Amino acid sequence: MAVDCMLDDMLMKANPYFIEKAQSFIPKIHRICEYPETFLKYRGDACRDTGDDADGYGKGDVLIWDFGHNHAAYFEFVCHSVGSPMDAPAFLHLKFCETEKELWEDCTEYQGWISKGWIQEEWLHIDELPRRMKMERRYAFRYVKITVLDTSQKFRIVFDQVKRIRVSSVQNEEAVCISTDDKLLRSIDEAALRTLANCMQTVFEDGPKRDRRLWLGDLRLQALTNYKTFRHNDLVKRCLYLFAGMPNKKGMIPACVFERPVPLMDDTFLLDYSLFFLPVLTEYYENTKDIETLRELAPSALRQIELAMEYVDERGVVFAEGVQSPAGLYYCFIDWNESLDKQCAMQAIILYSLRYAGRLCRLLGYEERISYFDELYDRMKTAAIAAFWDETNQVFISGPQRQISAASQVWMILAGVVRGKEAAALLERTKESPVTMVTPYMHHFYSMALIEAGDMAGAISHIKDYWGGMIRAGADTFWELYNPADENESPYGSACVNSYCHAWSCTPAYILRI
Amino acid sequence: MAVDCMLDDMLMKANPYFIEKAQSFIPKIHRICEYPETFLKYRGDACRDTGDDADGYGKGDVLIWDFGHNHAAYFEFVCHSVGSPMDAPAFLHLKFCETEKELWEDCTEYQGWISKGWIQEEWLHIDELPRRMKMERRYAFRYVKITVLDTSQKFRIVFDQVKRIRVSSVQNEEAVCISTDDKLLRSIDEAALRTLANCMQTVFEDGPKRDRRLWLGDLRLQALTNYKTFRHNDLVKRCLYLFAGMPNKKGMIPACVFERPVPLMDDTFLLDYSLFFLPVLTEYYENTKDIETLRELAPSALRQIELAMEYVDERGVVFAEGVQSPAGLYYCFIDWNESLDKQCAMQAIILYSLRYAGRLCRLLGYEERISYFDELYDRMKTAAIAAFWDETNQVFISGPQRQISAASQVWMILAGVVRGKEAAALLERTKESPVTMVTPYMHHFYSMALIEAGDMAGAISHIKDYWGGMIRAGADTFWELYNPADENESPYGSACVNSYCHAWSCTPAYILRI
Repeated sequence: MAVDCMLDDMLMKANPYFIEKAQSFIPKIHRICEYPETFLKYRGDACRDTGDDADGYGKGDVLIWDFGHNHAAYFEFVCHSVGSPMDAPAFLHLKFCETEKELWEDCTEYQGWISKGWIQEEWLHIDELPRRMKMERRYAFRYVKITVLDTSQKFRIVFDQVKRIRVSSVQNEEAVCISTDDKLLRSIDEAALRTLANCMQTVFEDGPKRDRRLWLGDLRLQALTNYKTFRHNDLVKRCLYLFAGMPNKKGMIPACVFERPVPLMDDTFLLDYSLFFLPVLTEYYENTKDIETLRELAPSALRQIELAMEYVDERGVVFAEGVQSPAGLYYCFIDWNESLDKQCAMQAIILYSLRYAGRLCRLLGYEERISYFDELYDRMKTAAIAAFWDETNQVFISGPQRQISAASQVWMILAGVVRGKEAAALLERTKESPVTMVTPYMHHFYSMALIEAGDMAGAISHIKDYWGGMIRAGADTFWELYNPADENESPYGSACVNSYCHAWSCTPAYILRI
Repeated sequence: MAVDCMLDDMLMKANPYFIEKAQSFIPKIHRICEYPETFLKYRGDACRDTGDDADGYGKGDVLIWDFGHNHAAYFEFVCHSVGSPMDAPAFLHLKFCETEKELWEDCTEYQGWISKGWIQEEWLHIDELPRRMKMERRYAFRYVKITVLDTSQKFRIVFDQVKRIRVSSVQNEEAVCISTDDKLLRSIDEAALRTLANCMQTVFEDGPKRDRRLWLGDLRLQALTNYKTFRHNDLVKRCLYLFAGMPNKKGMIPACVFERPVPLMDDTFLLDYSLFFLPVLTEYYENTKDIETLRELAPSALRQIELAMEYVDERGVVFAEGVQSPAGLYYCFIDWNESLDKQCAMQAIILYSLRYAGRLCRLLGYEERISYFDELYDRMKTAAIAAFWDETNQVFISGPQRQISAASQVWMILAGVVRGKEAAALLERTKESPVTMVTPYMHHFYSMALIEAGDMAGAISHIKDYWGGMIRAGADTFWELYNPADENESPYGSACVNSYCHAWSCTPAYILRI
């Protein structure tokens, strides 16, 4: 019986009407041809004269093209041979890098827990030259590094017409930049817009290098930023229908869905992500007034609250993550910090979602449900304070170790449990918590908590400090992970698979426009 | 001036009429679909249960398909994923092996002098499954080894419809096998025919793994074997016109020509190979009675003698290889043994070619030139005996070290300088020379010398011994190199790039049919 339940959790119950509607909004992808700005040649580690290329390149030569900015793109080049006739295949290694440091990273020994296949590299044998090479796969890159693994003693290889075809469902991100005299804020905004544009393909992807797919928590932040910038609202609509079209048999919306080869539910469920369907849908309506979509998808959204309540005990407190509740286990994301205790933040996210549930019911005139959600909110808020508020230290704690983290305070503030000056003081008190925030995603919510606490200047200052730190480290798009204390930090066992253009870090472009 | 001369040597003087004629004989390539006979799975070095494949394969799994025989072919397979949805690219390494030992050879550190690009391996990233993979390049293989470099923790990969499309301009090599009770000879003949068929593509290639192109010395042996077996004589004709169509400015025929992307002369000239245009053309006529081709190409053939004479001194003795003569340096091949002194054998090959020049002139009725070549032959034969015959040891010697090699004796016998019983005794005396023959190419001429000396039984016995040695070592096609004393011998710095199906070793199928 328990196994059957679990299987049900993992099986998709497709809504073909929703999926078809989602597919009718597949956007046009704009293609822009770009040429490299700089070309560098190396032999071993020594940078060589960048003079005449007509002599061609042979075994051991390393060539680097810098396209100036990091973009999702296809790569093309023409190569031909010089010297004696080509008497062996040319053998090349290509590496596509979002950042300069990846150019010199040795990834051959990567043994992290996520797939080695994410490292953007290829090995090519070319039997006949000249040839136009159109790389089949899409990459995210600013730099392309080609190592000539071998030609032969008789011929060398020349590269020509090196270019990339940049792709996005958004055009002209420059057009929506803010005008400000603050150079750093301008750079932050440009990088944020570039980050978002790169992730706007046929869905809102989390990152064009990795994982290249639609995650619900990430979508929330992309959609918010999109309304203030590119206003490609049909892309949000498509993503909403994809999620609503592919819940599990219980109706729970997965953390992630796949578009290709056919739309498919991922079997990853995160309680916080599922609940975020409520804010995404509500905010979509608020920005578009598309009442038909709101009506059609409201039941899917409200179902997430019902399902979340199965993980709440009789006191009104959510079970700890991974602890057996009558409904089974659940997991949530919150942040990538593995030492973070997530129970308190998860309680706050349920509260946060209950407020959106009430808002949504008001918009649709579901009178009797409004009071249900309001009352549930009040009861769980009282339970939250009883369970997580530490009167002595005047902070929210989480878990049996009574852990104090920024995440707990941030989410309790965003959930409206603490407000105004009290909220500002709480954030100030817990700023130096040893349980650090490691993702721009969590830093976004921290910034939003500052704003909620009335400290817009603090939020801007935090953006300049944290996102500005990436800019100072050379970022051209914002990263999946940024720990100012350890730039090589990775939850994956190696920075080789880190993504340096990740949608959840695009929100400065949103906050700077509030 | 000297530099100009050298440049002239290296520049092609195309004969568009000959090239066009060659191109009009591009043969049809037959395609035969084949499925593997055996499928083995390994994890690390341990062979695994070959039970159900439905569970798929993950990181570290090694899969080997054995197609039973080594052939030139294209490889195809279908792969799909099992488990959770595919959340990362599948990353595969493919290795194509002609022999079993290559399956376990570590070629990552190969640093030999010919291109690493010849190692038949590929790295593939597959972004979406299911997918039919049609490998673009042609390989020579019996085995395909796929190492799953990574999938992800959530999905595994399944392989299906694994097949190859065997290609050759020859069909049904089994049809022409000899019938004999001698099992070993039957195996030798089958392997020889398979070797030749694999090398018969749009030209006679030297090897389908490496170098995949038309060499004149190799063509000679392929053509001879072809007349007794597949009789695909238009392919010989095409190759003759390619060579005659692309000499250098002096009219010298190169050792090798390229077909693609457009016909092109290689800038490799070997004096022995150039001279072999004479026997190839003459024998082509003798086997086809195609007088038009003989007439058209005779001037190109006879020109090789004129050019060779520029490297002969006033005594009538060829200069030592690489020694400055009035006409410049020359190089010749003879055999891959690097310690071999080649002067004596080269003298013999000029004599050998003079006999073909005379034969060709007789066929065409070029009366006055017949006597010219006959007299030249006599003069150079006398000079050869004076220069290379060691009266004390009763052998031919070569070079300042007075080196005694089988190669010198073999070629002097084939040139008709020593005949009959004397020749047989000479071969017997020099059989154990420390300057060993290392290629099946040289062993062919040794066998022919035995036959020339009247010892057909000795030739057959040598074939059973030498080519039979490859069969006993598991050969399915005959190798480029075979030294019974050192199976890993390679002139290239590593056996990783050795070719195990090489046309010049196909001649048992010729000799067994004489």
